[in-house]
Amino acid sequence: MEIDISQQLKIAIDNKTKPLGALGVLEIIATQIGTLQNTINPTLNNPHIVVFAADHGIAIEGVSAYPAEVTQQMVLNFLNGGSAINVFCKQNNIQLKIVDAGVKFEFSPHENLIISKPKNGTANILNQPAMTKDELDFSLESGKKIVQTIYQKNCNVIGFGEMGIGNTSSASLITATILNISVETCTGKGTGLTDEKLKSKIEILQKGQEKHQSKTKTTEDILMSYGGFEIAQITGAILEAHRLGMLILIDGFIVTSALLVAHQFDNAVLENCIFCTQSQEQGHQKALDYLGVPPVLQLGLRLGEGTGCALAFPIIQSAVNFLNEMASFDEANVSK
Amino acid sequence: MEIDISQQLKIAIDNKTKPLGALGVLEIIATQIGTLQNTINPTLNNPHIVVFAADHGIAIEGVSAYPAEVTQQMVLNFLNGGSAINVFCKQNNIQLKIVDAGVKFEFSPHENLIISKPKNGTANILNQPAMTKDELDFSLESGKKIVQTIYQKNCNVIGFGEMGIGNTSSASLITATILNISVETCTGKGTGLTDEKLKSKIEILQKGQEKHQSKTKTTEDILMSYGGFEIAQITGAILEAHRLGMLILIDGFIVTSALLVAHQFDNAVLENCIFCTQSQEQGHQKALDYLGVPPVLQLGLRLGEGTGCALAFPIIQSAVNFLNEMASFDEANVSK
Repeated sequence: MEIDISQQLKIAIDNKTKPLGALGVLEIIATQIGTLQNTINPTLNNPHIVVFAADHGIAIEGVSAYPAEVTQQMVLNFLNGGSAINVFCKQNNIQLKIVDAGVKFEFSPHENLIISKPKNGTANILNQPAMTKDELDFSLESGKKIVQTIYQKNCNVIGFGEMGIGNTSSASLITATILNISVETCTGKGTGLTDEKLKSKIEILQKGQEKHQSKTKTTEDILMSYGGFEIAQITGAILEAHRLGMLILIDGFIVTSALLVAHQFDNAVLENCIFCTQSQEQGHQKALDYLGVPPVLQLGLRLGEGTGCALAFPIIQSAVNFLNEMASFDEANVSK
Repeated sequence: MEIDISQQLKIAIDNKTKPLGALGVLEIIATQIGTLQNTINPTLNNPHIVVFAADHGIAIEGVSAYPAEVTQQMVLNFLNGGSAINVFCKQNNIQLKIVDAGVKFEFSPHENLIISKPKNGTANILNQPAMTKDELDFSLESGKKIVQTIYQKNCNVIGFGEMGIGNTSSASLITATILNISVETCTGKGTGLTDEKLKSKIEILQKGQEKHQSKTKTTEDILMSYGGFEIAQITGAILEAHRLGMLILIDGFIVTSALLVAHQFDNAVLENCIFCTQSQEQGHQKALDYLGVPPVLQLGLRLGEGTGCALAFPIIQSAVNFLNEMASFDEANVSK
């Protein structure tokens, strides 16, 4: 009688020279990756992290502790190798690509930069939807194509990150809408608002929600209403990485909001996703609870850029390695 | 005016191109290591993990899900490269040394094995103290010498692990005594006891405590009464690594019980210690709370062997790397 892959993985893991279940979350990750790749000897090939950057019309309302120019400045920092995600990707041998998904700036060509944007920055959602249907379609398709290109380089594990001053506002509105909970419970201090500014941010987002909530009937409506361009591209990227059977590394609050949207389109995407980090943003915990997924790391990160993916990567590699390399009780002559 | 190292580190970290505090626990670790090494450019040199193995007289009472022979079998597995700690050390370029600190077996020489034991296994604590004063002195001194030898190889970061069927019993009794709480609240299922066997384990440990508690006046008494040889060597090793200014990686419940003893001898040891993992053993959480130290990883591990240290190592390296390699706001021309 043939046994299915999940049973094969359980037997392989339980026969390793360790007490049953003693590797905790690593055993869950090994089972997930083995099931995804349909093998008891999975591999992680040519890992990539793609950071999608874009600007947000709502930034003008003062929802962030930083001025909007920081989006473009940080993209240049990524290209020059000076940011946290550069350091962690270099340490862990992860290829890093940056996407200008809608930054208010015209970048010079760079080997690690992909310029693929419908427009420089979304509209201010207090006045109109963040993007048009054409802009949304462009963004979803762009994310998809970027993943296809990377997949063709023998990559089977891809993490997503983001940069965009104002994008916790989009993430809060998306999360509140999909989870059907109040904006207030999904809104945090982002990169470091004061208590007073947080109160003002919540009021601004409530206004934004009042303006659009009657029109957010479909999943596409939610993205069009609240943006941003980077979140839309990540949504398209997640859906394509799922279709291609890749392992998908989910970063913090903003990337998880894109995952929530992708999950509305196709809830099977969860099979491919590892939730790398629990952000300090309170809306992130709500989203993880809603999805019923535990995070790998709880380090109090609130940086984005895909840093949670890069930091969790060695642990995910360890999960694959113990499955491939540890001796069984029989091989090691250890009493079971 | 000169500023001290903690202020220098705060300035360096806060000037990196990220929101204040956005790297969470990594910022705390970077500050700790920089302070320990008295530099804003700390390094981790030639990392080692040392696994101390020993047998326990109390194992005969059925306190473990595994037979006592598993201690010697697992040491052979370590030497043959088949255990979890081998896999994770190899992945993360950590040197691994195994110490026979009191295993009931005579091992053949091996390049990664240090044989340094007073005796093959501790006494059964239901009948007498686990070890004599001479055996304790030998063990503390052995741990110290092993660390000295490794330090001479230009190593400045050392993790400790353990293997010993029955050693959660020693750890529970040590933890209960030092924290002055009941044995029951410090006793868990170890490597996988049933509920019924856990009840029996608690009763056995309560008997052990009744026998010795009137004699556990000093820190040395605690180690002599409850063992084990590996825990005593790790205590000596921690004290010496502290004296030498090394960064010390603390694994799970059993190594933390050795740290509790070292902390009784000299509470400054905490300056050197990173608590790598929160074990599934309930006594471990009590110990971490008592010390007021947060763990780096919360992965539900309950394996020991130093696996928590090996898995946390890349994250600790990331903390050092961001401090050394990230651009400052000025360097990157990013608005602060």
